[in-house]
Order: sequence, then structure tokens, then C-alpha cells
Amino acid sequence: MINPERIAHPEHPVLPIIKERYSPYVMNGQAVESEKLLSCLEAARWAASSFNEQPWRYILATRDDTEAWNKAMNCLVEANQDWAKNAGVLLLACTKKTFSYNGKPNRVHEHDLGMAGCSLTLQAQAIGLHVHMMGGINHASIRATYQVPDDFEPLTAIAIGYADKPENGDPELAKRDTGTRERKALCEFVFGHSWGHSAKQVL
Amino acid sequence: MINPERIAHPEHPVLPIIKERYSPYVMNGQAVESEKLLSCLEAARWAASSFNEQPWRYILATRDDTEAWNKAMNCLVEANQDWAKNAGVLLLACTKKTFSYNGKPNRVHEHDLGMAGCSLTLQAQAIGLHVHMMGGINHASIRATYQVPDDFEPLTAIAIGYADKPENGDPELAKRDTGTRERKALCEFVFGHSWGHSAKQVL
Repeated sequence: MINPERIAHPEHPVLPIIKERYSPYVMNGQAVESEKLLSCLEAARWAASSFNEQPWRYILATRDDTEAWNKAMNCLVEANQDWAKNAGVLLLACTKKTFSYNGKPNRVHEHDLGMAGCSLTLQAQAIGLHVHMMGGINHASIRATYQVPDDFEPLTAIAIGYADKPENGDPELAKRDTGTRERKALCEFVFGHSWGHSAKQVL
Repeated sequence: MINPERIAHPEHPVLPIIKERYSPYVMNGQAVESEKLLSCLEAARWAASSFNEQPWRYILATRDDTEAWNKAMNCLVEANQDWAKNAGVLLLACTKKTFSYNGKPNRVHEHDLGMAGCSLTLQAQAIGLHVHMMGGINHASIRATYQVPDDFEPLTAIAIGYADKPENGDPELAKRDTGTRERKALCEFVFGHSWGHSAKQVL
């Protein structure tokens, strides 16, 4: 489902999957087909990363496996459980803090987890799924529940599922799925010769 | 240019832009058309971010502006200058460490910079450009050269340009643009009921 109200209005042409992507709060509780899930994970797999470290690790729960589902769902903050319960897949995304080839800190491990997450998201969008990422997770719960080693950091959760029409959802959630999408203008975040001064190319 | 040797061999279907993307070391020194550059930046603009903070900031230099180009290029570690000099655009990517709505630390600011970077990368790939990201930057130089405020962190650099055939490049660089691309198998990074144990869905 494409939510017409949530389509971005870009000032320069971008791919439909970029324009139509949004992070829905209203999902319909449908399971995600396993071949679609595998395509999403595969997209994360081929993301770029510093020294090809691939620092991303995912704990996967699908809604058909009640035990795994509840275990993962309990690691979200409550406000996220309220809507994520209608997703089809939940991933708890963790990242390795050091390089495997020399054991030294990897300054961009969180950045690279984000790259993999975006690759997964755009693949999902291309095959009719929707992704909603969360920073609101219970880090200590994830560590304890899954015995995450010290060298890894739980960072985000990723809900994958099928967006529903806002009017089919809880009114409080529906409100968040309506309204024009907003972003800073390019001139507010692309600088030229010095910090805070817009690059001439974006004026 | 699609480098046939650098096309991924995914185990599950993914978008061509994900499969064909790689980080070239051999670029041809061609400028990037301004409308293409704007589409790349626009793709970054519409990425998801926690609380819609949009923590990404980019310092932009295009190769036609020699002063800006040299200034930005000097902020890369030397090994990266060697190949990035043949890109058309250089972005120094910085990220805001706190949320603007409450001033508190944003735990996922680096992650969200990565999301924007991946969106930019896949847009670039779709319009015939190539992106090569770098963690190898001189953080102190960037801070000093552009007077980056304390609340922001220089994290990566992004070269955008046109890949060239490896054989047209320096032999040392050409070597890095050849050979089969490698990734961990899904079962190595997607876990199920407990850490380090593959999810049944990826077996």
C-alpha cells in the first residue's frame, strides 16, 4: 500500500522507493512472506562497510513464532510495542564495536549498521513491504535476554510489515501516519567553504 | 559503467542497484552533472531518522572549484587522496550528536548518518554514478578547517563520481576493483532464539 499523504515532495528527482518510503505506525498484522524477508536481509548483507567488516548482527523474530516474538517485543520500549505488535517481523539490530582484522575500535560501526538498515528498508519498499525503525529499545533487556557479548552493541529495532490505511488503526497512531512529510531544505544541511554557509550548488 | 566482476551474487533476489553497487577505487576524473548531484543530496534528505532529527550535515566540494576541492581533499588520509582525486564530488559528512528538540544525546546519530549515506548511494547508482565512502578522514583537520561546532562530529567522507575500467587506473588501485565480492552468509549474522545461533528462517 502506498499512503498518498505520506509521499515525499522532493525538490529534485529521486527514486520512487525513496519518495514513497515512510515509517508507518499503522500496520495490518499480516505475516511477511519468507522469500520477501530473505530479500530484505540479503539487501542488508550487500551494504558497504568500512574494511568490509559487516558489523551488523540481527536477532530475528517472526510473528508466527509466538515465543520468539514475545521475547523480542518485550525488548522494545512500551510506546513502540503499541504499534510494532502489528508488524510481521521484528529485528533487533546490533553492531560489532571493533574490527575483526585487528581488534581495534571501529569508529563507523553504528554508521555502517545504518547503511545496512537503509539498504534493507529500500529493498522492502520495492517489494511492497514497509519498515519502521526504532531507537526506543531496552538495551539492557536485549543484552540480558540474548546474552549479547560485550563487543557488540544493541542499537535499533526494525519492524517490517504491511502498512494499513491510517483510518483502520488506533486514532492516536493514525494521526502520526497523516500530514505532509517535512525535511530541512538542502541549503540548511549542505555547506560550502565554511560551516553553516550553504554550498552555492544548492542555492 | 557496470563492472561485471563487481556484481554481487546474492542468494535471494535484490534490486539491481543493490546488486551492482560497489565502491570503486578507479574513477575517471569526470565532473558530476549538477542535476545528478542534487538528486543524490535529495535522496539523503528523505532518509529516515530518529525523531526526524536529520542529524546529517555535508560539506560539499566539486572538482570544478579548485580551492574548495583542495581544501576538502586535504582532509582525507593520504591513502584515500590517491584515488579520490579522480572523483567528481567530495562530501565531508558530519553528524549532530544531540537532539534539537530537547538537547539530549542522540544515541543513533551516526546510525542515521549512515541511513542518509546509503540512500544517497543507491540514488547515485540508479543514475549511473558511483559512490565510495571513507572512514579514513582527518577528523581534527575537518574540525579546524571548517570550524565544525563541538556538537557535531565529522565521521566519513563520500566520493561521488564515475567508475572507470580497472585497467585504466593505477595497477595498485585496479587490483582492488577486481575479484569476487564477499559477504558473510545470512546464517552468520541473523540470529534466532539466542546470540550466535542462526535463525531457522535463514537456514
